Amino acid sequence: MSGKIIEGRRQFLHKTGLGAALTGLTSSFSLPVVASSEQLELTDSLPEWMKVAGGEFKNYGQPSPHEQRVIRWISANSAAPGNGVSWTPLHDLQGTITPNGLHYERHHNGVPQIDPEQHLLLIDGLVKQALSFDIKSLLRYPMESRTCFIECGGNSNSGWRSNPTQTQAGYAHGLVSNAEWTGIPVKLLLQEAGIEPTAKWVIAEGADGAALNISIPLEKLLDDALLALYQNGERLRPENGYPLRLVLPGWEGILNVKWLRQLRLTDAPVMSRDETSQYTELQTDGKARQFTFMMEAKSLITSPSLGMMLPDNPGIYQISGLAWSGRGKITRVEISADGGDSWVDAKLQAPILAKAFTRFNLPWHWQGDYAILQSRATDETGYVQPTRETLIENRGKHGFFHYNAIVSWEITEEGDINHVYGF
Amino acid sequence: MSGKIIEGRRQFLHKTGLGAALTGLTSSFSLPVVASSEQLELTDSLPEWMKVAGGEFKNYGQPSPHEQRVIRWISANSAAPGNGVSWTPLHDLQGTITPNGLHYERHHNGVPQIDPEQHLLLIDGLVKQALSFDIKSLLRYPMESRTCFIECGGNSNSGWRSNPTQTQAGYAHGLVSNAEWTGIPVKLLLQEAGIEPTAKWVIAEGADGAALNISIPLEKLLDDALLALYQNGERLRPENGYPLRLVLPGWEGILNVKWLRQLRLTDAPVMSRDETSQYTELQTDGKARQFTFMMEAKSLITSPSLGMMLPDNPGIYQISGLAWSGRGKITRVEISADGGDSWVDAKLQAPILAKAFTRFNLPWHWQGDYAILQSRATDETGYVQPTRETLIENRGKHGFFHYNAIVSWEITEEGDINHVYGF
Repeated sequence: MSGKIIEGRRQFLHKTGLGAALTGLTSSFSLPVVASSEQLELTDSLPEWMKVAGGEFKNYGQPSPHEQRVIRWISANSAAPGNGVSWTPLHDLQGTITPNGLHYERHHNGVPQIDPEQHLLLIDGLVKQALSFDIKSLLRYPMESRTCFIECGGNSNSGWRSNPTQTQAGYAHGLVSNAEWTGIPVKLLLQEAGIEPTAKWVIAEGADGAALNISIPLEKLLDDALLALYQNGERLRPENGYPLRLVLPGWEGILNVKWLRQLRLTDAPVMSRDETSQYTELQTDGKARQFTFMMEAKSLITSPSLGMMLPDNPGIYQISGLAWSGRGKITRVEISADGGDSWVDAKLQAPILAKAFTRFNLPWHWQGDYAILQSRATDETGYVQPTRETLIENRGKHGFFHYNAIVSWEITEEGDINHVYGF
Repeated sequence: MSGKIIEGRRQFLHKTGLGAALTGLTSSFSLPVVASSEQLELTDSLPEWMKVAGGEFKNYGQPSPHEQRVIRWISANSAAPGNGVSWTPLHDLQGTITPNGLHYERHHNGVPQIDPEQHLLLIDGLVKQALSFDIKSLLRYPMESRTCFIECGGNSNSGWRSNPTQTQAGYAHGLVSNAEWTGIPVKLLLQEAGIEPTAKWVIAEGADGAALNISIPLEKLLDDALLALYQNGERLRPENGYPLRLVLPGWEGILNVKWLRQLRLTDAPVMSRDETSQYTELQTDGKARQFTFMMEAKSLITSPSLGMMLPDNPGIYQISGLAWSGRGKITRVEISADGGDSWVDAKLQAPILAKAFTRFNLPWHWQGDYAILQSRATDETGYVQPTRETLIENRGKHGFFHYNAIVSWEITEEGDINHVYGF
């Protein structure tokens, strides 16, 4: 394994002939040279759309027809079309907020069409008094907002495959999205019901056709969990749990139960399908990791990335991407253009919020040579995003979930971009 | 004028008989009592949507059909339907982000249907070299994100009328929205063109059928102005300037020119329609204020607000609203339940960002008495949101633009809510 890696590095250095200091990455500011004074006469003739009255006002707006290619890419089971995922096109987005129409989806039995007037949340089990709430009542409770990412435990799992998949950045790593969620701190309602001292776990159940249920440590629900009613200002979207979902900042997507109908306090986990046969990780010793709640630090260069190409050779490009950690704030993102031999700190965009997307940027003066672009995130706990090699050393190759290794984009001398391993 | 105010206050105190300390506003936490244990048996029978497979994945999501009443309310000129506004329903939203489908609109000749491949930005006038950029080129420049509000100079202008209009909060004050904008710092492109020393102003022009143009001090464009290409992560919406708009954090909406096609550097303002006959404010001395760029501190209780009612009498309610200031950060929002006689600090939701919406919250234990709810914002410069009385004393009643007075919601003993003046 490691021999192969070294070979990859050697081959790379041979191709580039570059020392560490000459990769063209720079913290100082570099502008592309792309403006033209030749096109100036065009602006003297008015475009067609200035000669006519424009379109009317709309009660609810939609993207431009020219942006129709910017979509969630659906990958569902043809035999059970409600079981699958749709991916956020991270490579087409900028900033840190994921617009509601493009938030990733993971459904086990489709999107239930819930009448909010009939939906109830039941809190029962090891509580002093079981309570039920309709949505109208919940809307009267104190609310808080929290901007955070939600990431599917299976995000990026093509990384476990032996050969690097040639898929656009968002369609390999976009089972993660970032939104401002607003709702009720779960602890308020648990405290209102009264928690019995023997309670240690909470079984959350959704009102979908899969009746998805999963076990969550009570401690997390008493910490920063929200019963979300709003997503980026408006009520939740159907595919994100309308009218009510759990949001557990920094924890695996499946725990953020959508269409939430029940929180049952217990002394032990329920051992449901999605915490035993699924969402656990087979290790090399034949045992599986279970209850792997936290999503560890990760980063991804969204531009340039696979499917794009570098039109100018040589030319100045702005490297841009996203970093996030379930443990807290991102404190550092480093960029390499030589497959990890040398690193330069990227600029992190403010405000840096805990358990939320952080955008990073760094100018790159590409000289036209073969290059390997990588990003490496560090969070406030000191955790550093691993290489694929280290991840596999620690976890084996059959984990399927929780893949967070450094992603390598190969830039060819022609300006094409490929996904590669071995760096 | 002031006599009338005092009479209003006297009448109010007579009706309530309350001293300042007994208004039910509390910084300590209060829960509504709205959960029910009587409904528990309902959750034992599965709802219909758990018995069938749910709906399929979608490439681009939409709100729940049950939320179709949450819309921008359109108020356009029937003779010229592209001239008007649509209002963000602030009373239906929570958190701080305005979702893109509900960002307010103000158009002078409708929404141009621009082909982004044909759109050009020209930078000319007092520059060393005129430059033009197509969108593809602009997408290669370094970008930054900025979460900020944009507010129409005419927002809340019904407040200048002699009688308080009975309109829902968003439909009187929702010509303001808050989004994460991502784009290129304008100064980068101006510096690339080279600024002549005589340049003091920049005339920005949009590519709509109105060819809207307006003058902006060069200083602001060299400060924090963005050439925005993205709005809440995705490319701009057509009604918000697709493919390119100016964003001038904290400054009057009309200066944030949509469909931007030209920035012409000059030594004097152009004196266009929208900085002379419109978007100026007639004062009592017969002269008009001009170039009133900054949007001053303002706040609004969005819940409870007109159109809602208080179902429990007495009952616990969560007062919630938004505050913002073009000068910088909001540092304080105070709430009164007795028409301004006594005030209690609301809780401000983190992160507090400069020139952006800040959500405030405060529990209120309503005793069932007549009450007047108000919010008052203070920003980091020490500016305090004025009463309507003070605003009119300073500015007269014919200003039409830049109305930022405290809004008063009357709560009747029956739990109805009205908009009132005189406090």
